Amino acid sequence: MLIAHGMSSWFSRLDIANNRVSTLSAVLRRQQFLVRSLVGIPDQNCRARMNAVEADSLNIVRKITPTLDLSRHKGQAGKIAVIGGCREYTGAPYFAAISALKIGADLSHVFCTKDAAPIIKSYSPELIVHPVLEESYSVRDEDKRSTASKILAEVNRWMERFDCLVIGPGLGRDPFLLDCVSEIMKSARQLNIPLVIDGDGLFLVTNSLELVSGYPLAVLTPNVNEYKRLVQRVLNCDVNDAEPSVELLSLVKGIGGVTVLRKGKSDLICDGAEVCSVSIFGSPRRCGGQGDILSGSVAVFISWARQCITYHGDTGLRPMNPTAMGCIAGSALLRKAASVAFEDKKRSTLTTDIIECLGNSLEDIAPAI
Amino acid sequence: MLIAHGMSSWFSRLDIANNRVSTLSAVLRRQQFLVRSLVGIPDQNCRARMNAVEADSLNIVRKITPTLDLSRHKGQAGKIAVIGGCREYTGAPYFAAISALKIGADLSHVFCTKDAAPIIKSYSPELIVHPVLEESYSVRDEDKRSTASKILAEVNRWMERFDCLVIGPGLGRDPFLLDCVSEIMKSARQLNIPLVIDGDGLFLVTNSLELVSGYPLAVLTPNVNEYKRLVQRVLNCDVNDAEPSVELLSLVKGIGGVTVLRKGKSDLICDGAEVCSVSIFGSPRRCGGQGDILSGSVAVFISWARQCITYHGDTGLRPMNPTAMGCIAGSALLRKAASVAFEDKKRSTLTTDIIECLGNSLEDIAPAI
Repeated sequence: MLIAHGMSSWFSRLDIANNRVSTLSAVLRRQQFLVRSLVGIPDQNCRARMNAVEADSLNIVRKITPTLDLSRHKGQAGKIAVIGGCREYTGAPYFAAISALKIGADLSHVFCTKDAAPIIKSYSPELIVHPVLEESYSVRDEDKRSTASKILAEVNRWMERFDCLVIGPGLGRDPFLLDCVSEIMKSARQLNIPLVIDGDGLFLVTNSLELVSGYPLAVLTPNVNEYKRLVQRVLNCDVNDAEPSVELLSLVKGIGGVTVLRKGKSDLICDGAEVCSVSIFGSPRRCGGQGDILSGSVAVFISWARQCITYHGDTGLRPMNPTAMGCIAGSALLRKAASVAFEDKKRSTLTTDIIECLGNSLEDIAPAI
Repeated sequence: MLIAHGMSSWFSRLDIANNRVSTLSAVLRRQQFLVRSLVGIPDQNCRARMNAVEADSLNIVRKITPTLDLSRHKGQAGKIAVIGGCREYTGAPYFAAISALKIGADLSHVFCTKDAAPIIKSYSPELIVHPVLEESYSVRDEDKRSTASKILAEVNRWMERFDCLVIGPGLGRDPFLLDCVSEIMKSARQLNIPLVIDGDGLFLVTNSLELVSGYPLAVLTPNVNEYKRLVQRVLNCDVNDAEPSVELLSLVKGIGGVTVLRKGKSDLICDGAEVCSVSIFGSPRRCGGQGDILSGSVAVFISWARQCITYHGDTGLRPMNPTAMGCIAGSALLRKAASVAFEDKKRSTLTTDIIECLGNSLEDIAPAI
């Protein structure tokens, strides 16, 4: 298996230096201890290797993005589902789902609450929107068990068709809703469907790490605040930006067997082996919704990376987990599209403007035919 | 404190002439008496200084608008909330909220009634729309107290995150709804969050001046009719256009410690110290909704002015209340965007056309990077 091979080769290359240990804070020492314990290698000459290496992201996008030809049929370029959208939030799941389509997925579904569905449907006739989730206010206590079963059955009816789920955009934090989503995640995991977890999905996972722990097809995409909460919960300390790669690796090891994409000025990606960065392109505009584009994009690229490995074997790239490849490709594409949109719209750039630049940005990197 | 300093320096420079007192009507004499009483300066050589000075508005826009860089994260360029939107009106809160985003705020929320929310959401996935307010027709008398508490709790859960609230676009005049909004304003005031009050928010405030009286972060943006009602209520007379600056100063003093932007052919701005005008650009088109653009814009510029003062200290401008700077900048930008839109669309210019010109207009004055 390429995933196993890729990860073991990363493990063997990982080392941590201690030539400046005396200057480290207690927090960093604890992180290094964690890394040593988990990776099982000596604490010699290692730190030098812990700077994130800039990923060859454009090449990864090129390699995993399928070229199109007339013999392909509907669904082969990806079927994505977003679990999110509630009474309060409808934009986020729309952004994630429409981004998947704009990149080239064939079908994009949204599973949301009954209140949210008509609105998300109204944003675009391109999406398939299922009004199946419920929030506590619309379910009587005595009906909760049966309602949860019905919701799970409804989602499971579709589950096997999906190449990747995005969990969390605009999900909200209703306890009943989050319980149902936990069950959906367990079903997806049984079927080996990759999970990209963002927004309120990260709130859920931070409080229930077992949902993703040990699942190599889980990807977490935290922003500044979400990352802070994850670090506090898993490493029991505050974020320390002096050694971001060491900390991210510790976090991933602490959660166990997942991939984390830490969003920031440079995006950092770690799947438990090494840490790489994506720093190309980018825009200084920080309008809300860009994280949703990213989660939808990463979902598509993970599907393509897995397809690429399954059907073409050697990707011509050094062995790498498909979740890491998906994160790197998604990050690079969003950063390019955001920079193109910003060039035109400057301060008034909104998320919909960036989405409109996804297609041309991808075409620039990896022409469709 | 720059605010205190700015205001005191303005007070010291303020004087009112009386060399033509004999020609004044009783009403104007009453206004001058009020100004003299409140400002506490002699009634000598004062009128000469009471002509509004044209503000150096483009320079103010340039100074307070933050340049963007890659190290910034979501929220730092502003988080705005609009309280408005009911069964009858949905366009106004949308215009205010989307204008805030188009100028460069990172997040824009709307708190509206349950009926209005799906429609406002459907206008744009970029807005976060909370269906939390209620009108009398949907609440039984015996439930009013508990419903009001729930509404306040729901809004308060978010309040601290906001840099500025816009109160009133499309709010309607339902008594129960206005009672709830009064409580929201009191909460915001306790947290020192600036309030921009327009539309039906001005109806509320005109009848309950104590909601804003003595709050230096309150901004009122009346149009011709709203100004007329304010003058009648506060100065107990009709509007007299012979001495608009004197009258506006009297009004602001009469309310106590707020800033008023009187919209008109020239916009007049007064924060209780002096009166300045913004007359540049502008358009003869008077389609409804431009006031909503203004309120959303002023909210963003006030946030930026406060940030600018907090983080950069000296703005390089003469000391000025951030609410006044926000009003001047918002007025100048709307007038420029309206003139650009009118150049292209003439009679058919609509509010959405003007909104589409906000970005380029701001970029012309204050480039993003």
